[in-house]
Amino acid sequence: MPRLNRSGSGDAVWAISADRVIGIGVDTTGSTPMPVDRDGTPLACLPKFKKNPNAMAWLWKDHTGYAEAAEITDKARQARPQFLAKCGGTYSSEWFWSKILHCKRVAPDVFAAAHSFVEYCDYIPAVLAGNTRPESIVRGICAAGHKAMYCEEWGGLPDKEFLAMLDPDLAGLRDRLYNQAVPSDRLAGRLCDVWAKKLGLKPGIAIAVGAFDAHMGGVGAGIREGTLVKILGTSTCDMMVMRADKPLADIPGVCGIVKGSILPDCYGIEAGQSAVGDIFLWFVNHLVPSSYGRSQDQKFIALAKAAAKQKPGAHGLMALDWNNGNRTILVDVRLSGLLLGQTLHTEAHEIYRALIEATAFGALTIINRIEEYGVPVKEIVNCGGLAVKNPLLMQIYADVTGRPMKISRSDQTCAVGAALFGAVAAGPDVSGFQTVGEAQDAICGVRSKVFNPDPAAHAVYAEMYTLYRQLHDAFGTAEWSGRMNQVMKQLIAIRERQR
Amino acid sequence: MPRLNRSGSGDAVWAISADRVIGIGVDTTGSTPMPVDRDGTPLACLPKFKKNPNAMAWLWKDHTGYAEAAEITDKARQARPQFLAKCGGTYSSEWFWSKILHCKRVAPDVFAAAHSFVEYCDYIPAVLAGNTRPESIVRGICAAGHKAMYCEEWGGLPDKEFLAMLDPDLAGLRDRLYNQAVPSDRLAGRLCDVWAKKLGLKPGIAIAVGAFDAHMGGVGAGIREGTLVKILGTSTCDMMVMRADKPLADIPGVCGIVKGSILPDCYGIEAGQSAVGDIFLWFVNHLVPSSYGRSQDQKFIALAKAAAKQKPGAHGLMALDWNNGNRTILVDVRLSGLLLGQTLHTEAHEIYRALIEATAFGALTIINRIEEYGVPVKEIVNCGGLAVKNPLLMQIYADVTGRPMKISRSDQTCAVGAALFGAVAAGPDVSGFQTVGEAQDAICGVRSKVFNPDPAAHAVYAEMYTLYRQLHDAFGTAEWSGRMNQVMKQLIAIRERQR
Repeated sequence: MPRLNRSGSGDAVWAISADRVIGIGVDTTGSTPMPVDRDGTPLACLPKFKKNPNAMAWLWKDHTGYAEAAEITDKARQARPQFLAKCGGTYSSEWFWSKILHCKRVAPDVFAAAHSFVEYCDYIPAVLAGNTRPESIVRGICAAGHKAMYCEEWGGLPDKEFLAMLDPDLAGLRDRLYNQAVPSDRLAGRLCDVWAKKLGLKPGIAIAVGAFDAHMGGVGAGIREGTLVKILGTSTCDMMVMRADKPLADIPGVCGIVKGSILPDCYGIEAGQSAVGDIFLWFVNHLVPSSYGRSQDQKFIALAKAAAKQKPGAHGLMALDWNNGNRTILVDVRLSGLLLGQTLHTEAHEIYRALIEATAFGALTIINRIEEYGVPVKEIVNCGGLAVKNPLLMQIYADVTGRPMKISRSDQTCAVGAALFGAVAAGPDVSGFQTVGEAQDAICGVRSKVFNPDPAAHAVYAEMYTLYRQLHDAFGTAEWSGRMNQVMKQLIAIRERQR
Repeated sequence: MPRLNRSGSGDAVWAISADRVIGIGVDTTGSTPMPVDRDGTPLACLPKFKKNPNAMAWLWKDHTGYAEAAEITDKARQARPQFLAKCGGTYSSEWFWSKILHCKRVAPDVFAAAHSFVEYCDYIPAVLAGNTRPESIVRGICAAGHKAMYCEEWGGLPDKEFLAMLDPDLAGLRDRLYNQAVPSDRLAGRLCDVWAKKLGLKPGIAIAVGAFDAHMGGVGAGIREGTLVKILGTSTCDMMVMRADKPLADIPGVCGIVKGSILPDCYGIEAGQSAVGDIFLWFVNHLVPSSYGRSQDQKFIALAKAAAKQKPGAHGLMALDWNNGNRTILVDVRLSGLLLGQTLHTEAHEIYRALIEATAFGALTIINRIEEYGVPVKEIVNCGGLAVKNPLLMQIYADVTGRPMKISRSDQTCAVGAALFGAVAAGPDVSGFQTVGEAQDAICGVRSKVFNPDPAAHAVYAEMYTLYRQLHDAFGTAEWSGRMNQVMKQLIAIRERQR
């Protein structure tokens, strides 16, 4: 694979002929379950359900199953506490069973027509392999373990007895799901003739088992023990690994700990923030006047320029980064945003800086929680659009956390991780890689530019973080006699009634 | 005084010749003390101090004396608790002694050059009467009682011993201030020849003792026992009266209770919100994109139109109206704004509505406090720019408080009140008015349009108000172990250090 050119942004441009492609790896968003029929055809592709949103893929950021999530959490807390321990103590509305149970309730016709449900990241490899019959689809441990409460300890998916407590039909569905899920260094199948022709690739090349974009991104960024990989986009995922031969405590409030979900022989630890880039987009699109520019891009540039001139705390503001709920460590979608400290002189770029800082404080809260439970963070590698495009954000993250921020070399780190698994799944005889680690050593790297913390800025942010934690705990936990904890949720309840 | 025309806005247009003007009344903002020399010339008019802001009038919204205000409050709490009881329990940074003590400390040269300090509302009548020598200026009870801790009970201004605790030079200044302050139905003097010529009026006509705009507005709006007059502008004043022959308890957190400050024979009760219209102006000027219009006016119209379509609570937002601190009932300038409940879909007009609602909740908090201390509110009459120009705000105020909102007939209610005192001060032989009440009956009135509360909206707002009170108490009082109470102030402290 001759390297022909390296672009300024860090991505190598490879010019290779199609017949030298040895494997394909697939990453998608998730949890994104799709209802399919007996042949594996998505119901949304059938005429009957074509216009029915409930028959479409249930996208990862869909929180409509929040009541079902609470019910699953409650029932598991009573009957199967071990299920919750592996997913941070709370089952999320964004996950597999919440969505399927919600589908059963709001669209019983869709549920009844669904022979099975398949995660999007498992479905695409099956399509490429030419066999989407649900019983033939190879399921990835990433989606199964992080979103569907699959664990070898208790025999795979949740048992029928538990599922029947939620809905008898869920117990019935279990027989039409799967009994095994595997890491992404394994083969999902081989490229079928139809798709080989469409893609101009050789038929029969390896297709690796699919996984979520963030997990693939962790691998593409060179994840190893002690490395926190942050995938910074509209929302954020934080990935870490711990060798599976060492004991690892459950970490309360951390989305999931799943063996093999990132690297085959390690526990994959996933945390994240429900909205980061999305908050900035919301702010710029809805609350920034034209004095900062006309287009979204112009506004972002002007905001960053003005915000970069400010000293930490000089705006007197503090925000909570919960415009789309809190994924880690509170695992509560019914939280909302907060901005505090505005005067009659507060300007948009000051709020923009406060919003970036809020996401940095959220990031620090996750790091602290992971370290408190025995997983040291020795290095942070960032990837995703924000890491590459927003130097102000990277500097603030360094200053808030007091740690250097490295950036993965590629602009498409998740794709690099997926491709890497394509090579590994092809086997050492074809790729030359015995292990994922070997492939990482050959492929992954960070940029020369590292954002180092400024000690003076870090000192101010340390002071501000104690204030952030007061707001975080008051509005996010029940410690404060439950009163402040309820303000956001009661407002949401009123909102839903009045809309 | 023949009434020739009545404009749609409610103001009568009087066509009278200048020689029929029988008196002048003056209202100004306050507390706005000015340092003057022995002749009564403002120091700012002398070449030496021309460019020195500390030698200029200390405008009412100036909070720079917040440390001095805290010191005055502390000292009075220990040594003269009676002083505080009459001004709500806390002496404000916006008031006379805070500003003068702050002047002494930051500009000792200005303080040393000041023979005396004169409130702007006392100064203008003295100018018109042609004698500004400090010892000749008639001082109004309104400014003296509400801002300078003047009370007949303790012999006028604070005693020298107390002032010396703050600064020995303040005790010295006391001799060059005043010993008596009187209501506005009394003569400040008679129009001097120089000013009669400038104004084209008859020399020798009555000039009433000056008072603050809000107090004059109360009178112009027809204030009487049971009537709450709200003067709604950039900030807001709430005025009430109670007959002085009945006992009246001190009301904690209410800015002031002063005999004669509104109507001569009544206690004048003053409360208020530090920013109302100012918050909307800030929001429109700094955080509303051009999709709502280009000009400020266009934006206000579009915001109001979109906000009016929303049901109460449908935005899921809650704000605290403290962008410029809280005047009543917390009396704390070092509080700041808060917005809670924003999602990734929150739009500017929803925030605009939430800000209006926040000021309404603040208004309700004041009403509740006044009523809790035995002053029933039987009627609410609004005046000022917002009352006249913002029907959405008036309807939300009605819905939040559950009370009808009336609007004073005049667009210039404060000026009507001042003019009314000009007539009364001229005496019954000239004006025909024996009392202020008689003059009010003849001159004041409300518009036919009354904003009545919608019961369904009021029910939702009642629910939301309990949430507002949780935020109000958590961030505004020390009840919550002082932790949340300190968040806003610590951010301000960091802000000041970092700027």
